Amino acid sequence: MVLELKVPQPTELVPHPDRLADLKGLLPVFLSYGLSFIYVGIYWNNHHHMLQSTRHVTGGILWANLHLLFWLSLFPFTTGWMGENHLTPTPTAVYGFVLLMAAIAYYILQCAIIASQGRDSLLAAAIGRDWKGKVSPICYFAAIPFAFVSPHISHALFIFVAILWLVPDRRIERALIGRKKE
Amino acid sequence: MVLELKVPQPTELVPHPDRLADLKGLLPVFLSYGLSFIYVGIYWNNHHHMLQSTRHVTGGILWANLHLLFWLSLFPFTTGWMGENHLTPTPTAVYGFVLLMAAIAYYILQCAIIASQGRDSLLAAAIGRDWKGKVSPICYFAAIPFAFVSPHISHALFIFVAILWLVPDRRIERALIGRKKE
Amino acid sequence: MVLELKVPQPTELVPHPDRLADLKGLLPVFLSYGLSFIYVGIYWNNHHHMLQSTRHVTGGILWANLHLLFWLSLFPFTTGWMGENHLTPTPTAVYGFVLLMAAIAYYILQCAIIASQGRDSLLAAAIGRDWKGKVSPICYFAAIPFAFVSPHISHALFIFVAILWLVPDRRIERALIGRKKE
Amino acid sequence: MVLELKVPQPTELVPHPDRLADLKGLLPVFLSYGLSFIYVGIYWNNHHHMLQSTRHVTGGILWANLHLLFWLSLFPFTTGWMGENHLTPTPTAVYGFVLLMAAIAYYILQCAIIASQGRDSLLAAAIGRDWKGKVSPICYFAAIPFAFVSPHISHALFIFVAILWLVPDRRIERALIGRKKE
Repeated sequence: MVLELKVPQPTELVPHPDRLADLKGLLPVFLSYGLSFIYVGIYWNNHHHMLQSTRHVTGGILWANLHLLFWLSLFPFTTGWMGENHLTPTPTAVYGFVLLMAAIAYYILQCAIIASQGRDSLLAAAIGRDWKGKVSPICYFAAIPFAFVSPHISHALFIFVAILWLVPDRRIERALIGRKKE
Repeated sequence: MVLELKVPQPTELVPHPDRLADLKGLLPVFLSYGLSFIYVGIYWNNHHHMLQSTRHVTGGILWANLHLLFWLSLFPFTTGWMGENHLTPTPTAVYGFVLLMAAIAYYILQCAIIASQGRDSLLAAAIGRDWKGKVSPICYFAAIPFAFVSPHISHALFIFVAILWLVPDRRIERALIGRKKE
Repeated sequence: MVLELKVPQPTELVPHPDRLADLKGLLPVFLSYGLSFIYVGIYWNNHHHMLQSTRHVTGGILWANLHLLFWLSLFPFTTGWMGENHLTPTPTAVYGFVLLMAAIAYYILQCAIIASQGRDSLLAAAIGRDWKGKVSPICYFAAIPFAFVSPHISHALFIFVAILWLVPDRRIERALIGRKKE
Repeated sequence: MVLELKVPQPTELVPHPDRLADLKGLLPVFLSYGLSFIYVGIYWNNHHHMLQSTRHVTGGILWANLHLLFWLSLFPFTTGWMGENHLTPTPTAVYGFVLLMAAIAYYILQCAIIASQGRDSLLAAAIGRDWKGKVSPICYFAAIPFAFVSPHISHALFIFVAILWLVPDRRIERALIGRKKE
């Protein structure tokens, strides 16, 4: 797991940070940790389903996958930066920017797989019109300027997209089961 | 491996912390590390056996699995917090709380697998009445208030459950071997 | 992923490092992170293709692989050292040295695989004259003294080699597809 | 990879630790890193060969494997402690102790696999008299008291055992190839 939570360190004022109150300062850290965990989980699950439907891995797919991994690898950094600064505007906007880039990278990977399999492939059929994949980057994109109006709007947008995806991509799942039954 | 042990750092008083005595302050850290290692091992082994008996992975199972991973991912944090504060009440209670949530998550995952396979499935038969799975969360639950009476009671409960599970789930193992022989 | 980015820590001067300007000091860290990410990606992709074409793993191949992993495992260290010191000469030279050693280790691994499969093997045919594998270590080797003339020359060489390899090893890929079609 | 190397941090005396001399203080850290890397590699390779020859994984084998992982998981700690204290007696002895426990754990795992496969199994035949497996723990055991006479003797013993094992377990490899040919 890429995300990390740091144990509260003893300071001169609090030599033994062992009370619940000592975790209170970590609340924004926990919140952004939880949010990012759900996002990583969403990518993992859909990624799992998508690659299951991929029969031949080309160089292009490998690079598109690596590009996605690059943005996902920045999640711990943006998560930590947003959490440790109590969810203030700039870190929230940067968090949204990395989410946006990851969503674009996911879209490119999807296109690369469909391109290598033909437009009448299983994945192309399973995804259909892909409204979730279109709504998500719009929300992330909107969250960036809104962070400077009020970070709460951006956080609400992040949580909205997370809930949107929490229902796994049953379309691909259903299509895969269909293939097995054939 | 998710758990981590930090090397004793040089301080002004002890510029070269290279004696056994310098590890003495780390004793509670080692104890909670060892305990958590056994717990992670228990989950790993039983998880391995459980997933081996799962033929079709649905979206629901993936999410139940991710939910379990979420609580397991908090183990390094609670282990470190309990160890670095010399096993005091609040960190011990929080450690027990995360163990409880992980046990509940494991139970949900088990139900999700049985639900997708039918009640007369291999796993349902193998688990039987699942008394261990019922005793463990009760012990974790009890350990939370007891931590504020005396953390020693909680630690005794944690160690008791660990020993309980150290015998791997031979029920599933036996059932799996039985299947292979059929 | 082995590489790591550290969140800017609060200092006495900047108790809340939550502005974009606070990331500015991290710019060289981001640049070396990005460069190393691409290098790790290149090794991963080509490694993936190379091992796919390997049928029998001998002890010699395992050791050659481990030797490559040793140098790759130093990437986070040299990346961090170069980035945190604003890309100055010595860290740049050491970064180049580890790249050179990794390239040599990759070459040895390639030879070990070809040796175990015979010179008329798939991999030997796929690699052909391997001009990229010859140009890269020359560039890394040149980057070491150039770092003390001007680190910019070395960085330009690193980026040049990265672009050179960004096109994945289609030779092996094509040969593998050819084999499947036979 | 479990081992970790820390980048030299800026101090008040050396605000930019970017010279080769700044790595000089890390020399013992590099030496113990290299030694541990070889040890981890030895365990990985032989472990790979051993598990390849295992057909049925029982609960006992899983636990024996976890026991081995426990001691291997302490390598980064003992490596760091020995390296950061310039290879002084006590850390060297503790390093040897963990090596000894890992060797014993490896022996137990080997016995558990042979026990589940019968004494006339492939692994039992491949290992034969297992003189390396007997000489190594004796060397580790001797290295513990010798560390307090002179750590150099212990380091020589560690390096001697590492060289001993650097030749991979061709016995198992040969037996495996033999099986494939049958």
